[in-house]
Amino acid sequence: MVRVTKNQEYTDKTLYLPGPTEVREEVIEAMAEPMFGHRSERMTDLYTTIVEDTKEFLDTDQDVMVLTASGTEFWEATTLNLVDDRMLVPTSGAFSERQANVAERLGKAVDRIEYEWGKAVKPEDVRETLEAGDYDAVGAVMNETSTGVRNPIEEIGEVLKEYPDTYFIVDAISCLGGDYIDIEGSGIDAIFTSTQKAFAMPPGLAVCTVSDAAYEREVASDSASWYGGFQRALDYYDRKGQTHSTPAVPLMLAYRRQMKHMLEEGHEERDRRHREMAAYTRDWAREHFGLFAEEGYRSQTVTCVENTRDIDVEATIEAVSEEYDMVFSSGYGPLTEEAFRIGHMGEHDLESIRALTDAIEDVAGL
Amino acid sequence: MVRVTKNQEYTDKTLYLPGPTEVREEVIEAMAEPMFGHRSERMTDLYTTIVEDTKEFLDTDQDVMVLTASGTEFWEATTLNLVDDRMLVPTSGAFSERQANVAERLGKAVDRIEYEWGKAVKPEDVRETLEAGDYDAVGAVMNETSTGVRNPIEEIGEVLKEYPDTYFIVDAISCLGGDYIDIEGSGIDAIFTSTQKAFAMPPGLAVCTVSDAAYEREVASDSASWYGGFQRALDYYDRKGQTHSTPAVPLMLAYRRQMKHMLEEGHEERDRRHREMAAYTRDWAREHFGLFAEEGYRSQTVTCVENTRDIDVEATIEAVSEEYDMVFSSGYGPLTEEAFRIGHMGEHDLESIRALTDAIEDVAGL
Repeated sequence: MVRVTKNQEYTDKTLYLPGPTEVREEVIEAMAEPMFGHRSERMTDLYTTIVEDTKEFLDTDQDVMVLTASGTEFWEATTLNLVDDRMLVPTSGAFSERQANVAERLGKAVDRIEYEWGKAVKPEDVRETLEAGDYDAVGAVMNETSTGVRNPIEEIGEVLKEYPDTYFIVDAISCLGGDYIDIEGSGIDAIFTSTQKAFAMPPGLAVCTVSDAAYEREVASDSASWYGGFQRALDYYDRKGQTHSTPAVPLMLAYRRQMKHMLEEGHEERDRRHREMAAYTRDWAREHFGLFAEEGYRSQTVTCVENTRDIDVEATIEAVSEEYDMVFSSGYGPLTEEAFRIGHMGEHDLESIRALTDAIEDVAGL
Repeated sequence: MVRVTKNQEYTDKTLYLPGPTEVREEVIEAMAEPMFGHRSERMTDLYTTIVEDTKEFLDTDQDVMVLTASGTEFWEATTLNLVDDRMLVPTSGAFSERQANVAERLGKAVDRIEYEWGKAVKPEDVRETLEAGDYDAVGAVMNETSTGVRNPIEEIGEVLKEYPDTYFIVDAISCLGGDYIDIEGSGIDAIFTSTQKAFAMPPGLAVCTVSDAAYEREVASDSASWYGGFQRALDYYDRKGQTHSTPAVPLMLAYRRQMKHMLEEGHEERDRRHREMAAYTRDWAREHFGLFAEEGYRSQTVTCVENTRDIDVEATIEAVSEEYDMVFSSGYGPLTEEAFRIGHMGEHDLESIRALTDAIEDVAGL
C-alpha cells in the first residue's frame, strides 16, 4: 500500500491524478531544513548526489541537469537550444499540441503530423515527413497525459537515426521513472520530466538529459536559452558541482531522499511495478468501461478510461473524494465527461490502485 | 534578534550572505505539507492570496506573476517578451553584465554603457544613449549584489518616460522587499526578484510585476516566452486564479506564510529597518575599513566593505564561521580578497548585524 501522508486534517486525500502524485512522508519532511548557501560545499554534495544518482537510475551516460522549473521550461529551453528554424511535432493530444505551441510562440516554424486524440504517433509517418522536409529537430511526447497514449519513442528514434542532423527531443513528463526507456539506444538527444509525476516528489524541479551532440549543437549555435541552457548548466556542473542559477534547495533535499529510494527499488522493479498497475487498471477498465487509447499504445502510468456507460464523471469524482478521500481525474479538456483518468504512478502499487477501483465501483454502482 | 532556525545540528550557521538569507522557522515548516493538486480550489486560494498580498506589499497595481524559477529566468523571459532586436544595458558589475549576456545568448543585440565596478549608473548617460539610438528596452539592475551599489532606478525611470516605446526592465533581485520603490511612479514595465533575498523565503520562486504596456507589447509580438510569458501567466490567473504551468507548491506555502508576516510589518517599516541596518553597517565599515560602492549610491541590503586593512578575507570568513557560526561573503569574483560583503536583508535587524560585526572585530583583532 502506498505510504500516504495524512498528518494534517485538510489534506486527507490520496492522489490518483496523472500528477501530482503521492509523496512519501520522509520526502516531504526532508524539505524542512534551515537555509544554507547554494554556493557552499554542502550544496555541491547535494547536487552532485542528485545528478549522479539520476544518471544511475535513468541508466544513462548522458549528462543530466536538474532545473528549478516545471517541465514546460524544458519544452522552451530545448527548442531555444536546438531549433534554429523548423521543428516537426507529431500531435495527438493536448500536451503534444502544447509542445508545438511553445515552439511557435518562440517564433519557430512548426510542422505537425496530426493524429486524432487517442491515437499514437506512427514512426512511418515521421519517416515520410523527414524524407520530404528539413528539420532541426523532432519533438515528441512519450506519454500523452491527456489521452493515456504511450507513443513508440524507441521506434521513432530508429527513424531519427537516419537523420543525424535532426535532434530528437522527448517530453517524458508523465512517465519517466515509471516507464523504462533506453535513452541512448533510442537515439534521444534530450528527454525530460518533472518531479511531481512518476518520480513521486514535490513539484518544482525538472530533469533533462543531454546528448553530447545536443550539447555541441548548442555551443555552436547563435542563440540559446541561458536559464535552461545545456552549456551553462553542464559547464557549471563540471567546474563546481552546482547549478548555474539559484536552485530550489528544499526541493533538492526532497529529490535526494526520494531518488535514493528509487535506486533502492531499481529501475527494473519500478518499471515492472508500473506495468503491473497499468495491466490491472486496463483489465478493470475493459470489464466495466472501455479504453480510450489505441490498442498496443497504452500508457504505463496513466489510464484513460472511456466512459462507455455514460456515468456522470464529475459527480463520481466528487463522491469518491467525499466518501473515500481519493482523488482521480476527469477526461482532459474536450473529454471531460467522455473519459476519466487514473494515475497509477510513483509510489502507488496494486493494492492502492485496487482500493480506488473498488471505490469507483461502489460509488458508480458497478 | 532575527529568529534563526537551528533545529538540526548540521545547519547551525546564521546567514549574512547577499542571499540566501535566514528564513523564519514557521516559514520553513509551512513547506512540510502533503501534496495536493495544483488544479484544485485549494491551489486557487493559495495562489490568489500570494499574488494579491504581493501586490499590496509592493504597493503596486501592476499585475504580478510568481514563477517557479530563479530570478535569472526573468532576465530571459523579459528579454524574450519585450525585446525584438536591440536592448540597452548599463553595466557596472557582475549581475548587470550577466543581464547583457543573457540577452546576447538569446541572439539579441545589446549595447552597454560600461561603468567601473563600484560606480552607479548615471541617468544622463542613459539619456544620451537613448537620444542616439533606438532600443526596444533598457534593462537595469537596481541593486548590484557584486559591488553593493544601489542604482538610481527612479531617476533612470524619469528619463525613460520620454521614450514610451522603450520598455524599462528592472532586476531588483537582491533588494526588493528591503528597499522600497514606487514601481508605477518610476515608469517600470517589469521589475523582478527572487524569494531567497530580502523576501526571506526559501529559494526557488521568482516574482515579476508587469505593466499594462508590457503585457500589450507581448500580446502584439511575434515571439515571446511561454514559460515566462506575461500573457500566458496573467490570462491564466484571470481565468483560473492559478499558475499556467505546474508550480512548486511547497515553496508557495512558504511564500504565503512569509508574505503575511511582511504585510504585518508593512513595507514602510521594512524599508526603514533595512535603512537602519545599512546605515549601521556603513558606519562600522567606515570606522574599520572603507566602502566599495560610490558615495550616494549604496545598497540598503548588501554592504560591500573595501578591505583597506588588507586582512585575509577568506581566513576571517572561515574563522567567524567556525567560532561564531555566522556566514558572510567575500568580494565577488575579481574582488575576492579586495572586499567582503555583508547581507543585511530579510529578517535580520540591528541586533543581529551587530552580532556579526562584533564577531568580525574579534576574529580580525580590530
